[in-house]
Amino acid sequence: MCGIVGYVGKKEASPILVSGLSKLEYRGYDSAGVAIIENNKLKVTKCKGRLSNLEAKLNENPIHGMIGIGHTRWATHGEPSDLNSHPHSNGDGTISVVHNGIIENYIALREWLIEKGYKFTSETDTEVIPHLIDYYYDGNLEKAVMKAASKMEGSYAIGVVSTHEPGKLVAVRKDSPLIVGIGKDEYFIASDIPAILNYTRDIYLLNDKEFVVITKDGVKLLTEDEEEIKKDIYHVTWNADAAEKGGFEHFMIKEIHEQPKAIKDTMSSRIVLGKPVTLDKITLTKEQLENINKVYIVACGTAYHAGMVGKYVIEKLARIPVEVDIASEFRYRNPIIDEKSLMIVISQSGETADTLAALREAKNHGARVIAITNVVGSSVSREAEDVLYTWAGPEIAVASTKAYVTQLIALYIIALYFAELKETLSKEEIEELKKEMLKLPEKAEELLKHKEVIQKFASKTYMHKDMFFLGRGLDYAAALEGSLKVKEVSYIHSEAYAAGELKHGPIALVENGTVVISLATQKDLFEKMVSNIKEVKTRGANVLAIAFEENKDIQKTVDSAIYIPKTHDVFSPVLSVIPLQLLSYYIAVQKGCDVDKPRNLAKSVTVE
Amino acid sequence: MCGIVGYVGKKEASPILVSGLSKLEYRGYDSAGVAIIENNKLKVTKCKGRLSNLEAKLNENPIHGMIGIGHTRWATHGEPSDLNSHPHSNGDGTISVVHNGIIENYIALREWLIEKGYKFTSETDTEVIPHLIDYYYDGNLEKAVMKAASKMEGSYAIGVVSTHEPGKLVAVRKDSPLIVGIGKDEYFIASDIPAILNYTRDIYLLNDKEFVVITKDGVKLLTEDEEEIKKDIYHVTWNADAAEKGGFEHFMIKEIHEQPKAIKDTMSSRIVLGKPVTLDKITLTKEQLENINKVYIVACGTAYHAGMVGKYVIEKLARIPVEVDIASEFRYRNPIIDEKSLMIVISQSGETADTLAALREAKNHGARVIAITNVVGSSVSREAEDVLYTWAGPEIAVASTKAYVTQLIALYIIALYFAELKETLSKEEIEELKKEMLKLPEKAEELLKHKEVIQKFASKTYMHKDMFFLGRGLDYAAALEGSLKVKEVSYIHSEAYAAGELKHGPIALVENGTVVISLATQKDLFEKMVSNIKEVKTRGANVLAIAFEENKDIQKTVDSAIYIPKTHDVFSPVLSVIPLQLLSYYIAVQKGCDVDKPRNLAKSVTVE
Repeated sequence: MCGIVGYVGKKEASPILVSGLSKLEYRGYDSAGVAIIENNKLKVTKCKGRLSNLEAKLNENPIHGMIGIGHTRWATHGEPSDLNSHPHSNGDGTISVVHNGIIENYIALREWLIEKGYKFTSETDTEVIPHLIDYYYDGNLEKAVMKAASKMEGSYAIGVVSTHEPGKLVAVRKDSPLIVGIGKDEYFIASDIPAILNYTRDIYLLNDKEFVVITKDGVKLLTEDEEEIKKDIYHVTWNADAAEKGGFEHFMIKEIHEQPKAIKDTMSSRIVLGKPVTLDKITLTKEQLENINKVYIVACGTAYHAGMVGKYVIEKLARIPVEVDIASEFRYRNPIIDEKSLMIVISQSGETADTLAALREAKNHGARVIAITNVVGSSVSREAEDVLYTWAGPEIAVASTKAYVTQLIALYIIALYFAELKETLSKEEIEELKKEMLKLPEKAEELLKHKEVIQKFASKTYMHKDMFFLGRGLDYAAALEGSLKVKEVSYIHSEAYAAGELKHGPIALVENGTVVISLATQKDLFEKMVSNIKEVKTRGANVLAIAFEENKDIQKTVDSAIYIPKTHDVFSPVLSVIPLQLLSYYIAVQKGCDVDKPRNLAKSVTVE
Repeated sequence: MCGIVGYVGKKEASPILVSGLSKLEYRGYDSAGVAIIENNKLKVTKCKGRLSNLEAKLNENPIHGMIGIGHTRWATHGEPSDLNSHPHSNGDGTISVVHNGIIENYIALREWLIEKGYKFTSETDTEVIPHLIDYYYDGNLEKAVMKAASKMEGSYAIGVVSTHEPGKLVAVRKDSPLIVGIGKDEYFIASDIPAILNYTRDIYLLNDKEFVVITKDGVKLLTEDEEEIKKDIYHVTWNADAAEKGGFEHFMIKEIHEQPKAIKDTMSSRIVLGKPVTLDKITLTKEQLENINKVYIVACGTAYHAGMVGKYVIEKLARIPVEVDIASEFRYRNPIIDEKSLMIVISQSGETADTLAALREAKNHGARVIAITNVVGSSVSREAEDVLYTWAGPEIAVASTKAYVTQLIALYIIALYFAELKETLSKEEIEELKKEMLKLPEKAEELLKHKEVIQKFASKTYMHKDMFFLGRGLDYAAALEGSLKVKEVSYIHSEAYAAGELKHGPIALVENGTVVISLATQKDLFEKMVSNIKEVKTRGANVLAIAFEENKDIQKTVDSAIYIPKTHDVFSPVLSVIPLQLLSYYIAVQKGCDVDKPRNLAKSVTVE
């Protein structure tokens, strides 16, 4: 996973490329580099580490030129190092390439190129690309890139510049994101919109295997058969300012605090008392829904945990069987899916490679797909029949918080919509649920006012190496998400368990002082959870409980307790996850971790 | 979870009770006790810790008497202590009770009894029972027990003796196992058959709420309305010797080595080349199967991991949608299940409380149930419509090994049976799979001959606090089981991840020296797994790979590798789990853990 940018225009390329990369650091940040054409020579500067290292190097030895490409890397092949950083070039330094994705057949290509006399200096898959282009170059850069691309298997978004044609930038994407920015006498490519928002708001959204040829005269889009493509310009209306920290120490804590608003925004115009639930442009009719006998919810990571809540809620409210699956498992499982299946995919970025592949698999089998995503115009949103956007706004911290709760809200909206169509709930029951739902922003706000217990618990436990999360039913789904947060930002080996499974193994790990976070919000499961808590208490665990305000009695049994405002049981994950997010945050801060950019992780996982 | 025994006869009760309890230690072993009537006085001896502590105490101060009850405990309410040990008695020591299960309404009963003037000395739920019986006693012990039982909610198997009627033992069960043994002029009660196998092979299998009244004249069985029950005697044919260690240091390693035979036995008469697959007495017809639109596999712990393989295999071979669920989650989920659903429950002991409850839930909704269990006559086997026994023989080590692989075999047999009925595979394809399957015992035997790599890896990593298991598809299911083994017996915090999820969080925990066990047996997923392995190697992980012999190239990428004999991809979990079991065993031995009886765990989880 990496971020790429490119510039062709009348200004100095170097600062524009670096500024663009700074907005893409969420995609990877283990090394960075640029290649700029200066006086008909290709000058490459690149180095291991954060972007600031590259900036320092460029300040020391500036490159002057008005066309160039840049890259910020997240290692997949070859460890982070100067040598493995992008851009990569051909032997005589006349062609330079930045690449996001994985070339799956790079070993075969490499061997073939070595036979032809090419020499390799890095361990990356990417290095085959400049050599391939070199091999095919015959006086026309875009043709050489097309021929090279036709040999490449896997996923890629690439940007190419060459001293052979020093005024030209060629780019193409397949299964990795890429957009083109159109300014006044200047043009850009980038993995994501924020990278170019300081310069232009007019962009082309590219489809797979669309080639881009940029010169000072403009942008040409070509198919792989060299036919020209006409495309509408997409005008970005949202504001780059929204992506700033606004007074908070980290993006993560800022985004945790944005949740009440994000929840409210995501419900707005969709959940209105006295009116039917509306899903924007989604037009699934009662007849179409009757024909559906199975819903698949497919996602990765945090979005998968939202899916687990979705399964529970759709089955409970709309009585349609739901299977929730990890995208990387689903796509290779040869799942039983057909035109009677409905798939819901969930991806914050809308670019998650496995989720996108699962979506395509479902479409190939005739299933209808609804996408829940946070990014307008993302690949997932373009390929699904229907989209329900989470209006969380840009999420910058790698660990997802506000995107998660808005994914929950989107799933509740879908469940209620289905329940309304299928009449599995009465009008009164639906109104009652909507009323409760509309109170969630206020309750989340209330919850965010009281952080003392969580801060105290974090300061007592932050040095622990292990942590366990327990819950039953919806509390189990919330426990999984809480545990993932702790893993991601605090580097504590935390693990969530369905509380009923405790005795089938994991209780062997509980000893004096073991930290156990127990969720006990579900009325019908409360007594069972208290029994499970007693089992770990008996063995010496230090227990933090999350329960509704009405169950304050639980404090007799546990060491610490957080109370959340009472809501309907189905909505509890929206609230119960907030103290868990805060716990992971405060532990990470105490430990001095890089909260917003945890080691080894990237925001948007566009490779498998 | 506990074990109970009782004796009425002409011999000294004390050694018989202790011998019986020694066979029930697999059910719990944190304290033990007996109550024996000596010269019309009830003498109780009990203490914390292993049974040997009790034996020492009884040797010091013997009790002489020919009627008594005994108990071995696994704490649920109140920590392990002398005071909380069973038997529990009423205030004047005239009534004594042993109990296995949980009295869910004990707090209310306790308060009610305290109001009546009763005094409590322990923290257990059980102590309410002798007081209740005391309260209702009116000259007839069985009537008092019946009245007491009518007030008790939850699960219980109890044995009661009293000096009021010094020649009588009364017992009853509800949702906890209990059997009656009939010897010559002597009678027994016990939680499980091995406890009495040294004395008799004739037993009564009890149903819920059947009361037992034993005197020197014989056994009387009564309903709760005091009507007498006539019951056939069940004659046990299997041999108690099978439960010995036979030369191995621990039961666990013995049972790991019994796997080739267990696999063979479980296939015998069911998988025969050139003949249709037969499932003993299971009579599901083609028409009935056509009517089934969904299979639920429900289980706990290790059996749940077998179920994950089952889902994959049934969907792949028979193309019937399968949902696999944790029993403690399923039963409270209000699942969508009806007469078109087929449920497969899996439980080694056949007494797992949550699994049994899930089975009953399914039957209530009209679903047909097939049980896969290792214990003939167990509750699960009696309540399911159909049973497919795993012929693994008694499994004594708490951590399941041979039961797991035979559960896999049972699921393969069911999948092939369905594929045959539904004709989703050709006759030739089925014969080919059967041929491969029949080679598994020999391949497992071969695999057990080469333990050096595993022993070496264990000796290098046993001091680690954390371990990660990675796999995709069937390898993920096997990874989950391998990880659970390490948790159970080695007390290492190990966790299994679907390899595709690595980048969505857990890779943040990978640093220099982190131990990662990677399974890479699935042909279609091999390249993807190698990519994932490189991702963790790049970050410094110490990787052990499990792959087929034909993929020895993988050793270039990893630190250690175990090669398993080539088989069809669907059968790989049967073989790949063996090195994982061995790994957990050797680590546990190196660490000096109590391999066969890990702390906090019990063999058969008959409470929630």
